[in-house]
Amino acid sequence: MSEQLAAEAARLDAADELAKIRDRFALDSDTVYLDGNSLGALPHSVAPRLQEVITREWGQLRIRSWDESGWWTAPERVGDRVGRLIGAAPGQVVVGDSTSVNVFKAVVAAVRIAQAGGEDGAGPTGGAVAPGGAVSVRGAGDVDGRNGGVTPPGVPGDVPARDEILVDATTFPTDGYIARSAARLTGCTLRPVPPGEIASAAGPRTAVALVNHVDYRTGRLHDLPGITAAVHAAGARVVWDLCHSAGALPVGLDAHGVDFAVGCTYKYLNGGPGSPAYLYVARDLQPRFDSPLPGWNSHADPFGMEADFTPADGAARGRVGTPDILSLLALDAALDVWDGVEIEDVRAKSLALTDFFLRCVGRYVPAGRVASVTPTAHGERGSQVSLRCSDAGAVMTELIRRGVVGDFRRPDVLRFGFTPLYTGFADAERAARVLAEVLSEGTGTSEGVS
Amino acid sequence: MSEQLAAEAARLDAADELAKIRDRFALDSDTVYLDGNSLGALPHSVAPRLQEVITREWGQLRIRSWDESGWWTAPERVGDRVGRLIGAAPGQVVVGDSTSVNVFKAVVAAVRIAQAGGEDGAGPTGGAVAPGGAVSVRGAGDVDGRNGGVTPPGVPGDVPARDEILVDATTFPTDGYIARSAARLTGCTLRPVPPGEIASAAGPRTAVALVNHVDYRTGRLHDLPGITAAVHAAGARVVWDLCHSAGALPVGLDAHGVDFAVGCTYKYLNGGPGSPAYLYVARDLQPRFDSPLPGWNSHADPFGMEADFTPADGAARGRVGTPDILSLLALDAALDVWDGVEIEDVRAKSLALTDFFLRCVGRYVPAGRVASVTPTAHGERGSQVSLRCSDAGAVMTELIRRGVVGDFRRPDVLRFGFTPLYTGFADAERAARVLAEVLSEGTGTSEGVS
Repeated sequence: MSEQLAAEAARLDAADELAKIRDRFALDSDTVYLDGNSLGALPHSVAPRLQEVITREWGQLRIRSWDESGWWTAPERVGDRVGRLIGAAPGQVVVGDSTSVNVFKAVVAAVRIAQAGGEDGAGPTGGAVAPGGAVSVRGAGDVDGRNGGVTPPGVPGDVPARDEILVDATTFPTDGYIARSAARLTGCTLRPVPPGEIASAAGPRTAVALVNHVDYRTGRLHDLPGITAAVHAAGARVVWDLCHSAGALPVGLDAHGVDFAVGCTYKYLNGGPGSPAYLYVARDLQPRFDSPLPGWNSHADPFGMEADFTPADGAARGRVGTPDILSLLALDAALDVWDGVEIEDVRAKSLALTDFFLRCVGRYVPAGRVASVTPTAHGERGSQVSLRCSDAGAVMTELIRRGVVGDFRRPDVLRFGFTPLYTGFADAERAARVLAEVLSEGTGTSEGVS
Repeated sequence: MSEQLAAEAARLDAADELAKIRDRFALDSDTVYLDGNSLGALPHSVAPRLQEVITREWGQLRIRSWDESGWWTAPERVGDRVGRLIGAAPGQVVVGDSTSVNVFKAVVAAVRIAQAGGEDGAGPTGGAVAPGGAVSVRGAGDVDGRNGGVTPPGVPGDVPARDEILVDATTFPTDGYIARSAARLTGCTLRPVPPGEIASAAGPRTAVALVNHVDYRTGRLHDLPGITAAVHAAGARVVWDLCHSAGALPVGLDAHGVDFAVGCTYKYLNGGPGSPAYLYVARDLQPRFDSPLPGWNSHADPFGMEADFTPADGAARGRVGTPDILSLLALDAALDVWDGVEIEDVRAKSLALTDFFLRCVGRYVPAGRVASVTPTAHGERGSQVSLRCSDAGAVMTELIRRGVVGDFRRPDVLRFGFTPLYTGFADAERAARVLAEVLSEGTGTSEGVS
């Protein structure tokens, strides 16, 4: 049984066009690393590039590097490289800050746009855009020292106020915390909704929906085109969190008319621990993007040192403070692994890997010991497999001891991330085999799936 | 004349106990680098440490490094190292995000505390704390999906609302932009006030004052103890921006009872381009620190993945998203240059350097060609000298060509930063001499000071 699947894995690896990409990463054959959905492996391109940045650009050129080494424009330049992988044409993605901070920018800006209504006719497609938002988007010129305070949610007449933020109820927690803060600061109400119900929940009071593209716990892929269209039809805006999809599958932001998106770069994009996140603002919304974090880097003339804020055009409007150059250029170097790689091929391999892993688990693991919480339908699956297992914590500790690195999510989930650029079918087979061994031997606390 | 000052410089350098610290930096003798108040020079300790972080901690240990390499707790650990240099006892400084983002956290949190009034009796010393803030600080438990919107600034009865944010009118622009955003989101009014008048401007409506410790343009040092005491006496809170003082002079945050402080680490702290900033929250205010950016890293149990937000205790409450490890550990390594260095000695040398430079300028430069806008009184001077010069842009270009690197601030300021850890008296003499040569020869656009 084991020999048969191992032989099949060898055949699949031999036929895999992406297999050669693994050489671009620092990996050893002792370990099966299935935690790239948490921290991507190190690309070989990073260390020499960072040495150059540190010793030559910082050490020798010093301040001149802001111009001469292209540091100042790196957030947009690297943003465009990320953009290619998530279906965004150049000029719409900027890299910087954390995912949480970018969620805050996007949600507050989306509320402001939704409350201002469909000015200039550029409202969401097919939407019943509330025309009577009481407050126009406050322009950059509103800098006389008297802001007059908070945007009132009330609207004159009988047009309902857009004062509700919908959030994916199964979201990675930080999105929910930040959305709640955004609601509090903009006078909105936050309503958690299961992601499958967001399309139907969006209504005339909805300002924005914040949704995860892939659920971090179950690996479930949500319907980005359908939810986006439904939220637009309700006259609202949508913010997608791409942390668990970017670099794993095609996202198609432009193609599906997404308004805003955010994501980290340290998972499938391999940017390194805590590498800077990104913000996508669709081109047609950029002129109305009214950031709650208008730092000097988003000023139209940052070195003019003006007391009044005039926002930059384009993606730079999403910047805040001085970009974190070392981490940003580490990410830039890390993105070299994508040279010549098409995301559609990555997706095909990802599905083949997770299919194969599930088959191996089904074949090797004693019946009833684990249950997959990851959907079997391809259209609903990201690039990880999550298995419920009552003693998951102890099982993962033992797996890691035996060289199979996934992670444990409380209370009872084993997560295995499949990163097609460096994970092979033999890795999947080995992981399932070692998992079966651990489960068969018992961890001292093993039980059936509850 | 020139020989005399050059000889004096040599004697001063020979007697300088800090002169040996220069060897800890990557510097050459061709250049006089006087832009360390913009981007600090590279410490030798950074490159090897980053190689280790990249190749071993990320490349080999990968996800395990969050625990085993101490990544997770690095924001507080490095924060304590910064804290030593700004007079903060351990547990009050956290490193992460940009200065702008930290200004936002501090100002909004300060407004919330000021509006809540002096609950638990821990109000500012000597202050007439408004007891009747209409809204208590919303605790972490307020997570039922209905936040009820914005904190109303109105207060029942005759106690005036604290609905005013004072900002240093000469601030580095980003602080003003962010403070304006904070005002807009919290229902406050922003009032720019010359820093010398903040002490008298603070009144019963003031929630918080945001002040730069050293003016980025003129190098003027503001009266941190006096302004802090005056703002407290008015019952308000103060946020200090230390970008241009941290690492250049003693700040004494704890000693002077400062509420909040923020600052960057890439100037006198030499953390590298865009290295992460820091946030100081005085220990007694931490339990009431109600962040507008409550990311998962500031949760009491970040890996509990709870839908409800419960803030962490201590400095970690100021965190937001995943820390940017490469940049953070570059800063950590850079801080090694401070081993055995006392900030009081740095301050003494800084004043001696700027005194000496001003003397050299006075002796060498043709009368009327430049005018110092940096105060002569030691108590009012930071660690830079700013000279007005009508053709400053062209002059700085030529200075840089001749190996004297300062910077130009529009429209007519030459800035020369003196970083006592690696700048010597001979550097100051040479800079003044080359400046005099350039000014004597003319740049083609030279005029007298207007």
